Parts: sequence; C-alpha cells; structure tokens
Amino acid sequence: MLSQATRVLLDGLNAGKRAALARAITLVESRNLDKFKQGQGLLSALLQQRRDGEATMFPKETIRLGISGPPGVGKSTFIEAFGTHLLKQGKRLAVLTIDPTSSLTGGSILGDKTRMPQLSADSRAFVRPSPSGGALGGVARSTSDAIVLCESVGYDVVLVETVGVGQNEVAVAGMVDLFMLLLPPAGGDELQGIKRGIMELSDLLVINKADGGLETVARQAQIEYTSALKLLRRRHQRWDPEVFAVSSLKGRGLDDVWAGVNRFYDHVGRDAVEHQRGLQYKEWMWRYVEDQLARHFKQHPPTRQKIADLEHRLMEQRITPGGAAEELLQSYFASSNFENPLNKL
Amino acid sequence: MLSQATRVLLDGLNAGKRAALARAITLVESRNLDKFKQGQGLLSALLQQRRDGEATMFPKETIRLGISGPPGVGKSTFIEAFGTHLLKQGKRLAVLTIDPTSSLTGGSILGDKTRMPQLSADSRAFVRPSPSGGALGGVARSTSDAIVLCESVGYDVVLVETVGVGQNEVAVAGMVDLFMLLLPPAGGDELQGIKRGIMELSDLLVINKADGGLETVARQAQIEYTSALKLLRRRHQRWDPEVFAVSSLKGRGLDDVWAGVNRFYDHVGRDAVEHQRGLQYKEWMWRYVEDQLARHFKQHPPTRQKIADLEHRLMEQRITPGGAAEELLQSYFASSNFENPLNKL
Repeated sequence: MLSQATRVLLDGLNAGKRAALARAITLVESRNLDKFKQGQGLLSALLQQRRDGEATMFPKETIRLGISGPPGVGKSTFIEAFGTHLLKQGKRLAVLTIDPTSSLTGGSILGDKTRMPQLSADSRAFVRPSPSGGALGGVARSTSDAIVLCESVGYDVVLVETVGVGQNEVAVAGMVDLFMLLLPPAGGDELQGIKRGIMELSDLLVINKADGGLETVARQAQIEYTSALKLLRRRHQRWDPEVFAVSSLKGRGLDDVWAGVNRFYDHVGRDAVEHQRGLQYKEWMWRYVEDQLARHFKQHPPTRQKIADLEHRLMEQRITPGGAAEELLQSYFASSNFENPLNKL
Repeated sequence: MLSQATRVLLDGLNAGKRAALARAITLVESRNLDKFKQGQGLLSALLQQRRDGEATMFPKETIRLGISGPPGVGKSTFIEAFGTHLLKQGKRLAVLTIDPTSSLTGGSILGDKTRMPQLSADSRAFVRPSPSGGALGGVARSTSDAIVLCESVGYDVVLVETVGVGQNEVAVAGMVDLFMLLLPPAGGDELQGIKRGIMELSDLLVINKADGGLETVARQAQIEYTSALKLLRRRHQRWDPEVFAVSSLKGRGLDDVWAGVNRFYDHVGRDAVEHQRGLQYKEWMWRYVEDQLARHFKQHPPTRQKIADLEHRLMEQRITPGGAAEELLQSYFASSNFENPLNKL
C-alpha cells in the first residue's frame, strides 16, 4: 500500500530519526493533495503499528500539554527553564509553537531558535513552529498530526505553545490532555476580560516572574487565583485546577509544576486520558469539517456575491435571518456543480 | 409581487388582527417551501412598510425579553403574574414558548392554555408555542420571524420563554434584547454546573418564591448572586446585571422587575438596541446556515455511510482528525451532484 518514499520515511521514524520527523511533519502540513495523502498514509501506518504492538519508538505513555499566556509573561523563558528541567528528569521533549501572525506559506517563525536557544541546541529536544491555519483560531489541522508524529519517534512530552489571542486556546485545548496558563505576578484586574474564558480551559495556572522583589505580589496573586478558580467551571470532574508561583529565571518552583502535571495524570487516570483523546479526535474532525464547509460556502461565487447585500439588509432589519439564510442556501445548493475545494488544498 | 392570499394576510396584520397573526406565524413555521416563501414575502413587505413609515400597527419601540429557568422554579406562575402586571400598565404582550421536548410536526404544547389561563383568556395578550427545531438547541429558525410578526400587529412586549436545557438559552439570547433568568430561593450550590453559563447570558436574575417563609432565604440568595455576578462576564458594556427577589404568588416585586427592564433600555440606549438586533440577525443567519450545511453533510449518503466507521476509528486513535476530515470532505465534494436539501424543507 505505501509508496517506496513513504516506506523509507516510516523506517526513519521507527528508527527515531529527527530528520524523518521533520520531513513527515512537512508532509502533513502540505497543501499539495498528493503530499498530504502521503502524510496521512504514513500516520495510519504508524498508528496501526502502535495498535499491533509492533516495535516502534512510541513511548508507552505520553504527556500532551498546552501552554499559553499573554505577551510579555515570559513564555519563552519559562519553556526553556521548564523544558531543561524535564530533560534532566530523563524526558524527551517536543515543543510545537503556534503563532497566528505567521502565515501558512511562510511556515517558520523567525527567531524561534533564538527564543529557546538551549532547547533548540539539545538533541533530546525538538522545537518546531506549527503553521497557523487562518481558520479554527489560527491553529492548523496539521498540529494534532504533528503531535502524533513527535510521539512516534520517542518524544514523551509534547508541549503545544500558543499566544494568548482567544480562539487559539480553545483549539489547542481540544488537542492536548491538560492546559497550562502562564500569568504575570499581579492578580485582581487581570481576572477581567478574555483571560477568564482561558482560565476556564486551564488545568494549571502558573504565575511567572516570582522573583526580584515580586515574590510577595506573586504569592498574593496565587491566593486570589485559587479562590477565583472555585467560581469557574472545571474542565475535568476528577481534577481541581492548581495554581503555582515560579521563577523561570531562578529555576524556582519548576519541580512543583512538573509534580502538578504528573498529579493530573494520576488523578484523571490513563484510561480516561486515552478516552478523552478519542473524543477530542471526533470533535476536532467535526470542527474542521464545519470550518471547511463554511469556508467553501462563503467563497462559492453564487453565494459570495449575495452575502454582502444580505448582511447589509439584515443590519438594517429589512429582512429576517431565516429568510436570508434560506436565500443563501438556495443559491448554494441550486448551483451544486461544485468545484471540489480540495483540488486547491 | 405579493400573491392575493398574502396581500389579504398583510391587510389583516395591518389591521392588527390576531387571526392573521396566527396564520402568518404558521406560514413562517411551515416546512412546505411554497408556504415558507409566502411567509418570507409577507415579512419583507411588513419590514419595508415599517421602514417607509407607512401606517402599520408596529409599535415605535418594542421590548424583546428572553426568559428561562430550571424546571420547578415557577416559570408559568411568574409569566402569568408578570404578564398581568404588564397588561395593567397598558402594554400588549406576546408570549412565545419554546419546548424542545415537543416536535416540529406536533407544534402545540399540551396544556399551554392551562399553564397560563389568565393570559390565554385576555385579548390584550397572545400566547403561542413555538415549534422546536431539533437544531440550534431546539430553537426553530422561525422564532425570530414570529417575534417580528407579533410586533407587526402591535404587541410591544414579546417574551420568549424556554426551558433550562443548555444550548436553548444561547439561541434565545441571540434573538432577544435582554435575557432574564428565574432562580429558586436558594443560592450557593445552585451556582454550580450549567447555570453558570446561563447566568453569563443573563441581564436580570429573578429569584422567585420569595414568600411563605422563604423571604429570608431569597434575600440571602439575592446577596450571593449579586456578588457572584461580579466575577462573571457581562453581556453588555453599559449594563450591570441586576438581581431581584419576587413572589409571583403574592404579586410582590414585579414592579421592580419591570422597572429593571426599562432601566436596561435606558442605560443601553435605543440606538444600541437596534444595532444589536441587526448584529443578532447576521449571527443568527450564519448559525442557521452552518447548521444546515452540517446537517446536509451528515445526511448526504456518500458521507453518511463513512461517518460511523471514521468516528469509531477516531475513538480508537487509529486515524487522526485531519485525515478523517479530509476523507469525509473528499467524498462529499466528489459527489457534488447534490439533491437540493431545500426541496424537502
């Protein structure tokens, strides 16, 4: 079934080769249909091998950790420090960074290697920018594929980093086991606005920069966030979110955070985590399908040329939503001789 | 442009006739395409008349109020008492009730007239069950059309009632100006779970049954809800949600609630309300379109026969979401000779 090229790549992954990993991720990110299919074939083969218990590099248990935080909170510094701490524990770490300001074609975020120089230089770590999709809050379809590919060569901790811009976090939370929010050492007003929604997604809150005289403020923030969390929805029935104060600069508190991550898996349980991953896969597929359907609908010429006018008349309340929706749907389905949108994937 | 039958109906609405209103709502609810189009033509004509300033029964300013609450909180009793209070103020009231447990074909909720006997018997009030759509959290596309139709014959307060089952409230909140949540006279634990999401949609919280020895408990709940609201997102920048304690049975506190409703319109301002209605129309159109696209996608035979198998393989993590989504999208668009789904509206 697999082509010769795919077979070579599969062998490379099964031997734990970083170069094979990089090439495989490029395939699943590709907008070229043939390459994309090659990437999916590779993934299926890998997952089948894992299920069949055939010798692969897949770790028995992996950790999928989402991480976010507002600009200036010190994400790079934290990931460097936390990642280095994990490497010392004998872990192998992959970091996928999502930057919605980068483009799909561009791919690489300028300066990613300089943002995390230590991890980038360490052979036990793998740092890779994930292209942003422009849809689903800028998180690409391929990111969840890239997670599996990283695991397939032996990375047992995959960290998906995103910047704090709303919808992003929701998408990332849908592809990781637990979500960590980095916060600056100041409480109170920080609770307002967008961060509350993100706090509800978060299993761990980490207050960074608890150093240089800010220790007291950070402790105070820790208390405030702890009581605020009590009033928010919980993501997991079996997990009460925890709040930490750390200094990435001094390396203080990182072991507590790591203990918190492990406590999460102990409390929730591996079976529940695996089940959650399956559910996430289903949800993620439907989100992507619905996103693509809406995109095709809005770009389809017979529909597209009506949208602006209908929206204008809706804003002026000259028509009602039901009628406008039916008019659009009519012209869409009446011209059902679609150009297959996947030809220009 | 309008057919003779539609013209007769339009004249009936312009004369403020209840029978014309009932027939017009039946048209916009219809799943028969011809009837549906007739209803949409009627709506367009009405809205055009209003914009042209032609003599119609449209009140200059109307109130669109959503209302929800958990089973047993006393919604019927409250609506009876509150509605009767409004009629005494010289208002004309329409009540649209949404019950997602009723079916589209069935339409009428058994016992709606017995639930609100006083309002049902009063010629200044109009009570009508709205069919549930099975989609959009059970709220039908036609409900927002029915609101306009009620206004067109002179009802200046339209109350959309729904039962507390999650997605329902989100849909209703998207078609009214302000949203009221009825609560039982007990705080604390009530804050847990689904109600928090609904509380964030709510502009007014009304604690019912503040009578028969429960006055103190209700006052305590009022204090607790007031402080809890401070930690939740606000729907409107210019409106801090308010909490009331009332006795529908004794008719106590209803004037306060009504004053609160009017304060809402004063604070937010009529221009902002009209602008919000336009935005709601746009959002509502897109929600409905996306809902229909997903429905068609899931029911389209080439897609449908793959879904169960793909979902099963996703749950077992034998494939990844991106690949599964592309496989479904491929077979959907490859067979682009759609049967127009609107033929079986």
